[in-house]
Amino acid sequence: MWIMRQAGRYLPEYRAIREKIEFLPLCKTPDLAAEVTVQPVRRLGVDAAIIFSDILIPTEAMGMELELGDRGPHFPSPLRTAADIEKLVVPDPVERTGFVAEAIRRTRAALHDAVPVIGFAGAPFTLAAYMVEGGGSKSFILIKRLLFEQPKVAHALFDRLTRTLIPYLEMQVEAGARIVQIFDSWGGELSPHDFEAFSLPYLKTMVQALQAKGVPVIVFGTAMSTHLPLLRKTGAEVLGCDWRIEIDQARVLAGPDVALQGNLDPLALFLPPAELDQRVADILRRAGPVGHIFNLGHGILPPTSPDATKHLVETVHRLGCHVTAPPTP
Amino acid sequence: MWIMRQAGRYLPEYRAIREKIEFLPLCKTPDLAAEVTVQPVRRLGVDAAIIFSDILIPTEAMGMELELGDRGPHFPSPLRTAADIEKLVVPDPVERTGFVAEAIRRTRAALHDAVPVIGFAGAPFTLAAYMVEGGGSKSFILIKRLLFEQPKVAHALFDRLTRTLIPYLEMQVEAGARIVQIFDSWGGELSPHDFEAFSLPYLKTMVQALQAKGVPVIVFGTAMSTHLPLLRKTGAEVLGCDWRIEIDQARVLAGPDVALQGNLDPLALFLPPAELDQRVADILRRAGPVGHIFNLGHGILPPTSPDATKHLVETVHRLGCHVTAPPTP
Repeated sequence: MWIMRQAGRYLPEYRAIREKIEFLPLCKTPDLAAEVTVQPVRRLGVDAAIIFSDILIPTEAMGMELELGDRGPHFPSPLRTAADIEKLVVPDPVERTGFVAEAIRRTRAALHDAVPVIGFAGAPFTLAAYMVEGGGSKSFILIKRLLFEQPKVAHALFDRLTRTLIPYLEMQVEAGARIVQIFDSWGGELSPHDFEAFSLPYLKTMVQALQAKGVPVIVFGTAMSTHLPLLRKTGAEVLGCDWRIEIDQARVLAGPDVALQGNLDPLALFLPPAELDQRVADILRRAGPVGHIFNLGHGILPPTSPDATKHLVETVHRLGCHVTAPPTP
Repeated sequence: MWIMRQAGRYLPEYRAIREKIEFLPLCKTPDLAAEVTVQPVRRLGVDAAIIFSDILIPTEAMGMELELGDRGPHFPSPLRTAADIEKLVVPDPVERTGFVAEAIRRTRAALHDAVPVIGFAGAPFTLAAYMVEGGGSKSFILIKRLLFEQPKVAHALFDRLTRTLIPYLEMQVEAGARIVQIFDSWGGELSPHDFEAFSLPYLKTMVQALQAKGVPVIVFGTAMSTHLPLLRKTGAEVLGCDWRIEIDQARVLAGPDVALQGNLDPLALFLPPAELDQRVADILRRAGPVGHIFNLGHGILPPTSPDATKHLVETVHRLGCHVTAPPTP
C-alpha cells in the first residue's frame, strides 16, 4: 500500500520544509525533494515512496511559463493557437528535468533501496488540458473545443507531449524508479468515444515504452470508472480506481488480468477508527487476495490527521496480505 | 427532448433580459421568469419547458443568506454547527417561494399548455453540500466531514431539507408542472456506500411523495453512472446520465424498467454538424426506441451557438421517435 500525495501538506515535517521553500523550487532541489519523499515512509511505514514532484514539471521544460501557487497551477500564457503548440520543444529530460532523476537517486540512497520508489508523469490529455485551459477548469471548454474544432492540432499537441513524457519517465526508471504511475487526472471528463480517440492511443504508446524498460505501469484517473474497459486496453499492469465504485464492480469492468489500485475515499480518514477499519476490511474483501494495491481513491487532503493516516496503514497491513517488494537488482 | 439549462446565457434574448435584471431577482419575477422559460421553446422547438429558477431558492426560504454571482453561488454564513442547522426553518412554500408557482402558471399560459412544463429542485445532499461548504467545492471536505464526524447532525439537515423540498415540488405540481427533476448534482462525489446512507433515503422519500401527486420524477447527477444500480432504488421513472458512459451501458446498470435521459457531452455542440449528427445517431441507436428522453449530459454552456443547438433539436426530431406529450387534463 501507498497513499497518493503521501508526501504533502498533512505532514507537519513537510510543512516545516515548505516554510523555507516554495513548491516548485522544492521539486527542483533534489536533497529536499528526497527528504519529503522519505518522510511518509518513516512516519507511516507505507510500502513505497512516490517521488515528490508535480505532473506539470515537463510542461515547463517544454517552454511553458508555469506558476504553482496555493490556488492551483496557472499558465500565464496558455496555448491558444497551432503556432503556440509548434513553439513547444521536446526537451532533453536530463538537461531540463534532471533534478527529478537526482531526487530519485537520493531517495533510494536514503531508503537503502529497502522501499521501492514510484516515478510518475501526467497523461498527454491531462497535461494538454492544463496547458490549453491555463490551469484547472470546471467544464474544460477550451481543451474540448480544441479536440472538436481542431482535432489535428490537438493530436499534434498530444504527440509532442508523448514524445516528451516517454523519455522523462525513462529517465526516472534509469534513476531507479521501480514502477511508474501515469496520472490521467482529467481523462474522466471525456466521453468513452473521445477518451478512446484522444487519450487512449497516447497512454498505450507510453505504457508500451515503459514496459520495454522493464517496469510495470499504473494508470490512474478520477471519475473514470466507466472507462475501465478502455483503460485495460492501455496494457497497464495496474489501473487506479477512485471511490465512486465498489472495487469488485471495478474488477468486473477491468477484467481478471489487471491489478487494481485504490479505492478508499480520502475523507474516510475522518471516520471514527472502528468505522474506518470496517471500510478497509470491506475494500480488502471486495478486492480479493491478489492483484490489489491498497490506496486512497485520490490524493490525501491537507487537513487529514497524520495519526489517522498511520492507523490506516497499520490496519491495511494487519488485515491485508502484505507482500514485500523484492530487493532492487 | 429538452436541454438542461436551455433557458440561459447562450441565448441572446436571455442575455438581453439579464442586462436589465440580476439572476436572483429574475427568478423571483414571474413574468420575466416565464418569458426566459419560453424563449428556448420558441427558438429551438424543444419538447418541454423547464421553469427558470435555481436549485438554491429553497435554501434562502429556509433562512440562509444566498448570493448568486457570476462566480457561482455563495453563502456568506455557511452552516457550521448543529445550532446553525437547528435555526433553519421549514418554510411555507407558497408564502416564501410562491413566485416559482406563479412563473409556472404564466409559462403555461404563454405556451397555451401545448408544451409540458418541468419543475425541479435540488436533492437534500446536494443542497446541504452547498450550504455547509458555503458554495461550490473541489474536495467537499466540510460536508463529508459532517457526514463522517457528525452523521446525526447531517441526517437532521437532510431531514429538514426533505421536509422543505417535498412541499416546494408539490407546489410546482399544483401550479401545473407535469414532471419534476431532482438534481443530485454532487451525489456522484459520494462512494456507493455513502450515497446509499446519506442521499438515497431522502431521494426515495421525495420520489414517493411526488409520485403520489401524480407526476413522474427524473433524478439526475453527474459522475454518478456507477450509482445507477442504487439510483433505480429511488423508484424514479427517469434517471439522468452524463456523457461519461455509453447509454447502452447505463441501461445495463439501470435495468430495463426505467427511462434514461441524456447523454450528449454539452461540448459536442462545437463539433462540425455532420459529426454532431453522428453522435446523436449513436446515442439514439444505443438508447433504443423507447424509454429515452434525449438531453445533454449536463447543462448547455454559455459560449454555445444557438444555431448549433437548434440544429441539434432538429436532428434529434428527425432521427428519433418523437413522442408528443398528451394535452394537459
